[in-house]
Amino acid sequence: MMDNVKTDLLVIGGSAGGAVAALTAKSFYPEKKMTVIRKEPKVLVPCGIPYISTTLNGEIDKDVMSDAMLTGKGIELIIDEVRSIDRESKSVTTSKGDQIGYEKLILATGSEPIVPPIPGIDIKNVFSVKKDAEYLKELFGAIPSVKEIVVIGGGFIGVEFADDISKGDANVSIVEMLPHCMMAAFDEDFCAKVEEELKEEGVGIYTNCTAETIIGDEKVEYVVLNNGEKLKAEMVILGIGVKPEIDLAREAGLKISEKGGIWVDKYMRTEDKNIFAVGDCAESYSFFTKNPIPLRLASIASNEGRIAGANAFKLKRVSEGTIGTFSTMAGDYGFAKAGLTQKGAKELGYEIVVGDAEAPDRHPATLPGTHIMKVRLIFERTTAQLIGGEIYGGGSGAGCMINAVATMIQNRMTANEIPTFQMGTHPLMTCSPANCHMLSAAEDAVSKF
Amino acid sequence: MMDNVKTDLLVIGGSAGGAVAALTAKSFYPEKKMTVIRKEPKVLVPCGIPYISTTLNGEIDKDVMSDAMLTGKGIELIIDEVRSIDRESKSVTTSKGDQIGYEKLILATGSEPIVPPIPGIDIKNVFSVKKDAEYLKELFGAIPSVKEIVVIGGGFIGVEFADDISKGDANVSIVEMLPHCMMAAFDEDFCAKVEEELKEEGVGIYTNCTAETIIGDEKVEYVVLNNGEKLKAEMVILGIGVKPEIDLAREAGLKISEKGGIWVDKYMRTEDKNIFAVGDCAESYSFFTKNPIPLRLASIASNEGRIAGANAFKLKRVSEGTIGTFSTMAGDYGFAKAGLTQKGAKELGYEIVVGDAEAPDRHPATLPGTHIMKVRLIFERTTAQLIGGEIYGGGSGAGCMINAVATMIQNRMTANEIPTFQMGTHPLMTCSPANCHMLSAAEDAVSKF
Repeated sequence: MMDNVKTDLLVIGGSAGGAVAALTAKSFYPEKKMTVIRKEPKVLVPCGIPYISTTLNGEIDKDVMSDAMLTGKGIELIIDEVRSIDRESKSVTTSKGDQIGYEKLILATGSEPIVPPIPGIDIKNVFSVKKDAEYLKELFGAIPSVKEIVVIGGGFIGVEFADDISKGDANVSIVEMLPHCMMAAFDEDFCAKVEEELKEEGVGIYTNCTAETIIGDEKVEYVVLNNGEKLKAEMVILGIGVKPEIDLAREAGLKISEKGGIWVDKYMRTEDKNIFAVGDCAESYSFFTKNPIPLRLASIASNEGRIAGANAFKLKRVSEGTIGTFSTMAGDYGFAKAGLTQKGAKELGYEIVVGDAEAPDRHPATLPGTHIMKVRLIFERTTAQLIGGEIYGGGSGAGCMINAVATMIQNRMTANEIPTFQMGTHPLMTCSPANCHMLSAAEDAVSKF
Repeated sequence: MMDNVKTDLLVIGGSAGGAVAALTAKSFYPEKKMTVIRKEPKVLVPCGIPYISTTLNGEIDKDVMSDAMLTGKGIELIIDEVRSIDRESKSVTTSKGDQIGYEKLILATGSEPIVPPIPGIDIKNVFSVKKDAEYLKELFGAIPSVKEIVVIGGGFIGVEFADDISKGDANVSIVEMLPHCMMAAFDEDFCAKVEEELKEEGVGIYTNCTAETIIGDEKVEYVVLNNGEKLKAEMVILGIGVKPEIDLAREAGLKISEKGGIWVDKYMRTEDKNIFAVGDCAESYSFFTKNPIPLRLASIASNEGRIAGANAFKLKRVSEGTIGTFSTMAGDYGFAKAGLTQKGAKELGYEIVVGDAEAPDRHPATLPGTHIMKVRLIFERTTAQLIGGEIYGGGSGAGCMINAVATMIQNRMTANEIPTFQMGTHPLMTCSPANCHMLSAAEDAVSKF
């Protein structure tokens, strides 16, 4: 057992939110002693996990975050689990029995996959997507030996697993209870395009239905749907969603938001001004409504880490709330979104004006590799401010271009400003300047105000 | 000879600026009669011209702008050349002897390549890059029959020709009088990376030298440099730059800017309130200084077309000045810039703070196709406003991502705002959220203020 030690800033959790918080704090306060404590010997790049399936040949070690990123900057790294926080003495106690004192504490404890209470959920070869290298070794170790895989949940984790598995030898299907995959992220026509791409890759899509029972003796054999259909399955992957990991915070008496995350203010502080929370464990608030939104992404965690880290010893940055910039791939196409969908905006009571445009993503369109890129921009009617955008297109374009849309939303640009946005174009990289989806979508909206 | 005709809006010139101006005007004023008159039977996609060399197999017809884009929207198209403008009677006279009356006129007469007074410039197989299909047919027709091509001028046209020719069978070299290719567009280290990529493709690079004489009997045989070096050349392509085509405007008595373009106000109107000018023929003014800048790009022309078109019958849009968003490719890499380079900013008297960052453009970096993407952000010291950005990276990422930088510049975002920009990321499309070049470059700058 170590002697009691003290650090200036202690970060609990070493994935995107925790690592970025520590790095940001170190760059602002280089003289302070910083320590990251995490339970995992290795941290996986969280977004990369689905792509271990085929693209990374099942090799978990290809998806590991480098510890040198932290230690190279003089941040101490401890592999141990924090069991409790004593806010009065400003110290934590670990599984190994050590005590670590802190001046400031950042909670980045992440989330756990939701495991639905389906009968048969404990049968062998039924996996959730835990960010745990040992557990995932089993998951990816099982893929090469099976022919039929069922993914339960058609959100982004489910879609990404199915997409990458389909590039390998196994057959894969998605079971989704909503009318389409990805409905939380995109409008229906974009969801339909995701499904079209998945189907072209041979992915089976079962929407409007739920998994009622998982059947199997030694190992899983079938998934029975609520419509009675029986899907052959030698392996099941659950991609239902995640819930914030808040036990430590709750036991330390910190306020928990009604939506289940740790309550934080706009500086990313919990109720205890010496304790911050970032990432999946913390509540995120909408850029638009300032209400909690159930969106948990590594990009949001990193953003919150950049705020909490900068604020650790002196308040310097404010969270304006989460816009929700998101991208994924299915087949040859990238799909990306920033802000609200039409459906999401209407649910929040917005009156909206929508502009759509499609254009080839190379010019002339005779160039090899040309795909159609579609852009949708969603504006609030009275202010004409941009509140959402959706893009799909070939290759990586959508994932990059959505960041221009996110910037426009963050700066509250209006419908009449965007058509004269000075877009940079190039034959081999983008749409034509004369036929630009982004500007035309705004122009389309302008004509509807 | 036709009878005299009258149109509501006459646009002279049918390339990017003219076509977009007409289309924009039609969408704002659908009841108005609109006419585009141009001298070229076919209009080439201007930015695509270099890529006809190899990527489009020398086939000019693969790089043609569709006339249906105009006529499909009810815009009349006339192939004829305007010889003079009578501002008093508000009409133009054409080469065929027709008179066309207008209520409003938009000049989009473009530019002509600069042909330097080098001895031997008239020898056969010495070409400039005229946007003229018949002329270019000769140029591209000559490429397959030669082995040695010299490109004079290492700006973007020269680099793009050399890049695309190098993908074919001929050997190609660039002669550039400045210390590096692309120096007007990028800082030196970015220029060096362009040259590195070109050299890897086998392009010969002769910088710090000029072409003194072109030698040949029936056809060009050599280019002699000012350092005495003699480059074998069966073909020469001049990529020196362009000069605005302003004869019509000058003869009509319109004011010409001291930098050689047609003077326009912020609504894109010339001195005559019924006549607008857009694109290469019009003067562009800097977003930063409001002074004329010699930047002529199809993206700028299109932007100006969107302003002039909207303003044709009622002022609706204002030009904030040209940011200058630009991208190109060399080898596997895209290179992109928005706003000012370090050098450009210093020449304008700016005190600057610069942030740099590099990161893999996929995450984890073990994913196939991963390249390093480099981002430079340039801030004005006292206001901390972003005034420039440069990016290079594999594939099309740089060309798309630069539009987020352009949006940030247009919204005058500051160094402390950008690290908390909510960047969307995806393993197969972008950098990692925890190691994001764009945000890290801003963070790097923040640490230097």
